[in-house]
Amino acid sequence: MPAEQPDDPTGPVERELDAIVIGAGPAGEVAAGKLAGGGLEVALIERHLVGGECSYYACMPSKALLRPAEILHEARRVAGAAQAVRGELDVPAVLARRDEVIHHRDDSAQLPWLEERSIELLRGHARIVGERAVRVGDTLLRARRAIVLATGSVAAIPPVPGLREAAPWTNREATTAEQIPGSLLILGGGVVGVEMASAYASLGAHVTLVEAAQRLIGGEEPWVSELVAQALRERGVRLLLGAKAAAVKRADADGPIAMTLEDATELQSDELLVATGRRPLSDDLGLETVGIDPGGYVHVDSQLRAGGHDWLYVVGDLNGKALLTHMGKHQARSAAAAILGHPLETSPAGEVVPRVIFTDPQVAAVGHTLASAREAGLQVREARVSLQANAGSTYVGHDADGCVSILVDEQRRVIVGASFVGVEVAEGLHAATVAIVAQVPLALLAQAVPSFPVRTEFWLGLLEEAGRA
Amino acid sequence: MPAEQPDDPTGPVERELDAIVIGAGPAGEVAAGKLAGGGLEVALIERHLVGGECSYYACMPSKALLRPAEILHEARRVAGAAQAVRGELDVPAVLARRDEVIHHRDDSAQLPWLEERSIELLRGHARIVGERAVRVGDTLLRARRAIVLATGSVAAIPPVPGLREAAPWTNREATTAEQIPGSLLILGGGVVGVEMASAYASLGAHVTLVEAAQRLIGGEEPWVSELVAQALRERGVRLLLGAKAAAVKRADADGPIAMTLEDATELQSDELLVATGRRPLSDDLGLETVGIDPGGYVHVDSQLRAGGHDWLYVVGDLNGKALLTHMGKHQARSAAAAILGHPLETSPAGEVVPRVIFTDPQVAAVGHTLASAREAGLQVREARVSLQANAGSTYVGHDADGCVSILVDEQRRVIVGASFVGVEVAEGLHAATVAIVAQVPLALLAQAVPSFPVRTEFWLGLLEEAGRA
Repeated sequence: MPAEQPDDPTGPVERELDAIVIGAGPAGEVAAGKLAGGGLEVALIERHLVGGECSYYACMPSKALLRPAEILHEARRVAGAAQAVRGELDVPAVLARRDEVIHHRDDSAQLPWLEERSIELLRGHARIVGERAVRVGDTLLRARRAIVLATGSVAAIPPVPGLREAAPWTNREATTAEQIPGSLLILGGGVVGVEMASAYASLGAHVTLVEAAQRLIGGEEPWVSELVAQALRERGVRLLLGAKAAAVKRADADGPIAMTLEDATELQSDELLVATGRRPLSDDLGLETVGIDPGGYVHVDSQLRAGGHDWLYVVGDLNGKALLTHMGKHQARSAAAAILGHPLETSPAGEVVPRVIFTDPQVAAVGHTLASAREAGLQVREARVSLQANAGSTYVGHDADGCVSILVDEQRRVIVGASFVGVEVAEGLHAATVAIVAQVPLALLAQAVPSFPVRTEFWLGLLEEAGRA
Repeated sequence: MPAEQPDDPTGPVERELDAIVIGAGPAGEVAAGKLAGGGLEVALIERHLVGGECSYYACMPSKALLRPAEILHEARRVAGAAQAVRGELDVPAVLARRDEVIHHRDDSAQLPWLEERSIELLRGHARIVGERAVRVGDTLLRARRAIVLATGSVAAIPPVPGLREAAPWTNREATTAEQIPGSLLILGGGVVGVEMASAYASLGAHVTLVEAAQRLIGGEEPWVSELVAQALRERGVRLLLGAKAAAVKRADADGPIAMTLEDATELQSDELLVATGRRPLSDDLGLETVGIDPGGYVHVDSQLRAGGHDWLYVVGDLNGKALLTHMGKHQARSAAAAILGHPLETSPAGEVVPRVIFTDPQVAAVGHTLASAREAGLQVREARVSLQANAGSTYVGHDADGCVSILVDEQRRVIVGASFVGVEVAEGLHAATVAIVAQVPLALLAQAVPSFPVRTEFWLGLLEEAGRA
C-alpha cells in the first residue's frame, strides 16, 4: 500500500496510529504482526525489501547455496544411494534454486501476510523526528503507544587501505552472485566467512580464508573451531589464521583483487568477500532527536526500551544483543507483548541464545561456552562425547567425525551450554535449549529417553560422562 | 568365553556370581554393562547372537534397508543435487550395506565390549531352576544379588488357517532377505508392517498390506496414520484396511503364497510377511520354579521386579511395558541402578515413551496421544501445525506435507504428548521428550528459542496455537 499522498504537496500529511515499526526484516515483521494481532493499528516502514536482509541476502540464500552440496555429500556416503549419484553438483541449478528461495528479490509474496493483518506498509526511509513521531517521505506519523526500531545491520568494512575502493563483496553479493568466481578470497572467519567458504568451495571456487585470530568462529568452543577448520581444509579451502590484511588493491574494476597481509604475503583472487562483522543501521534514524547517540548499537534496558523512553523499543540486530534472526524475532515477540500490556515470562536461566552454523558438518550450539561460563563466574565442567559408535549416526550416513558436548553447572547440576558438531545436527539442538531454559536437573534429564536408533542417543553418553563428577 | 567344563560330566558345575543376566540383546547388554561397571561379577547368557534381535533382525537392518531410498528421495527434491542423481537405487548395494550394518550376523564385534568389562559370556539356553539359580548347559549359576531376565520377544504368528504351514516371513526374514521378491504381502499395519512396506516398495517389490483395523499404526494419532497411509500409497503400496485374513496356502514350498480374506478377496504374492505383533520369550525360562506363570509377558512392579522376589528383575520386551529397544535399555539402567543400591530418580511425569517409525516421511511421537490422554483422565487440547511455510523445512528439501502436534494438559499448562510427521523428524523429538519429562510450563517453553532457519521453528507455531485457549 503506497503512502498516502499529501493534500498540500509542500507540507507533511499527519497521521496517528497505535504503533510504528521501522524496518520490515524478520524482527520488524514479527513485531508488526504481533501488535496488529493484539488489535493495534500498525504502520510498518521499509526502505528496501519486506523480509529484510535475512530473506534476501543472509540466512535464506546462504542456506540455499549450502544445502545441495550437503545432501549430495550425504547421499554419496550411503551405499545403494551413492551408486545413483553419477553426476556432479549442478551449479546453475543451485543458483536458480537460490533465486527461487529469495523470490528473485521481489517482496510481493510477503505483502499478503501484512494485508491480512491490516498492517499498513509505507515504503521509504524513516526518521524519528521527536517524541513518538516519525517522518517518512512526506508523511509524519505519530504513535499513540510505541515506536519499534528494527532497522538491522549491514556488513562493516574494516579500515584496510584500499579495501573500500576495491569494491569488495559483502554478504549481499556473496549470497546473490549470478556466477561463481574462479577464486574467492574471504576476509573474516566468523559465521558468514565459514559458511561462504564452505558454499563456494563446493560450488567450484578456489577459496582462501584470511582470519586475524588464531582460530575460526571465535565465539564457539576451540574444539568446534578445529573441527570446522578441518572440514574446510578437506574441501580444499586454504585457511590463513592469525593473518591480518594490510592493503587491498584492484587495478581494474573487472580485474582480480590483490591483498597484502601484514607479514607481506601477497594473495590474489577474482573476488574478495569482506565478512569481518556488522554495523548497526542507526546513523540516519533521527535518534539524536530523542536524546540517543546515533551510529552505534542502540543500548536497551531489560524491557528492550531505549533512551529511557517508555514508548521506544529496539529489537533485532540494531540493539546489538544477539545478531541472529531468531533472537530478533524473539525480542520482537517480547516487545510486542510488553506494548500490549501482557509481558512474557522471562527465563530464570537468563537469555539463552541458540546458534547454528550451516557448514558441513554443521555447528549447533546454545547457551554458554566454557569460556563465557567461566567469565560469568560459573563453576562448570564439560562432558564431551564423539558421535562415533552412535547407532543413529552410522546407518544414516552421517559421518562419524562429529562430536557433542554439554556444560554442567557443578553447583546446581543443570546444563548451561551445549555444542554439537556433525552432519545436520541443527534439529537436535532444541532439546538442549529446552533443558537449559527450564534448568532441568541432570537426574531428571536422564529420564528423557532418546529413541533408538536415533543420533540423539548421544545424550546417554553425555549424561553418563557428566555423572562422573 | 565358553562355559567352564564340568569336572564330573554327569553333574553340573556350580558357580556363584553377583548377578546373572539372561539375554544379550540391548537391554541385557546394558544391564550387564552397568552392573559390571558398578563392580559386580556378572554372567551374561545368550543362546543366539550377542546384540539381540535389534542388532541383527529388527532396528538396525530395517533402518539400513530404508535409509538409502530416503536420502535419494530427498536429494531428488533439491535442485542442484537432483541433477547429479542420474541412476536408480542400487538394490544389491543396499543389501550389502545392510549386511555390513548387521555384521553379517556375526557377533564377534560385540565381544570385546563384554571382555573389557569382565562380563562373562555363556552361550546356551538358560533356565531358572529355583531361587537365584540358573542352569545353562552343564553349569549351575547362583546369583548372590540378582537375576535379570531380558530374553525379549519373537514375532507372533496369528492362528490363521494354513499360515504357519506356509512358512511366512517374520521380521527376521524380511530384514535379512538376500533378494527382493517380485511381490510381498504384509499382514499387519503396525510399525514393522509400515516400515517394511516402505522399504520393499522402494526396493522394487509390489507390496500389498493387509490390516484388520481401519487404519495403520493404531497406537498413533489418526491423522498420523492417514499421512503414513498416503505416503505408502504414493509409493505404490496397496493398502487393504479393515481386511482380515481367513486362510493362507502355499502349494509349493518355493512357489507363491495365496491368501483369502474374510470378504473372499483372493491375494497372491511371492512372499508373505507376518507383522501382527510379538510374543514374549517366557515359555521356556523356568519361571514356574519361582512361582511365575510362564508363557505371557512377565508382570513387573514399579521397581521392575517380578513374582514378588527382591532378586528377580525383568527388563525389555519380556515385561511387555514398551516393546522398544530404547525403553528396554532404559529399564536396564534403572534395574542395574536399583541392584547397585542407588535407584534412579523417577520422572514425576510418569514413564514417557518416545517412538520413531522410519517410514518416509518419518513418524516421531512421545508421551500421550489424544486417545490415551483422555483415557488417563487428562483434560487435553491438541495444537497442530503444518510444516508448510516453515523456512527450515523448505530450503532443506524436506517436503512440506509434514505436520506436527503437541497435546497440552489444560489444567497444568504443560505438554503431555507430541506427534511429528515429516522427513527426518526423529532428531527433533527429544526436545518434546525433555519438555514432557520435566513438565516445563508452556510459558517457560516459549523462552526456548528455536534457531532460524531450522525446522524446529514449528515450536513457535505450536505454542502460539496452544496459547489460543
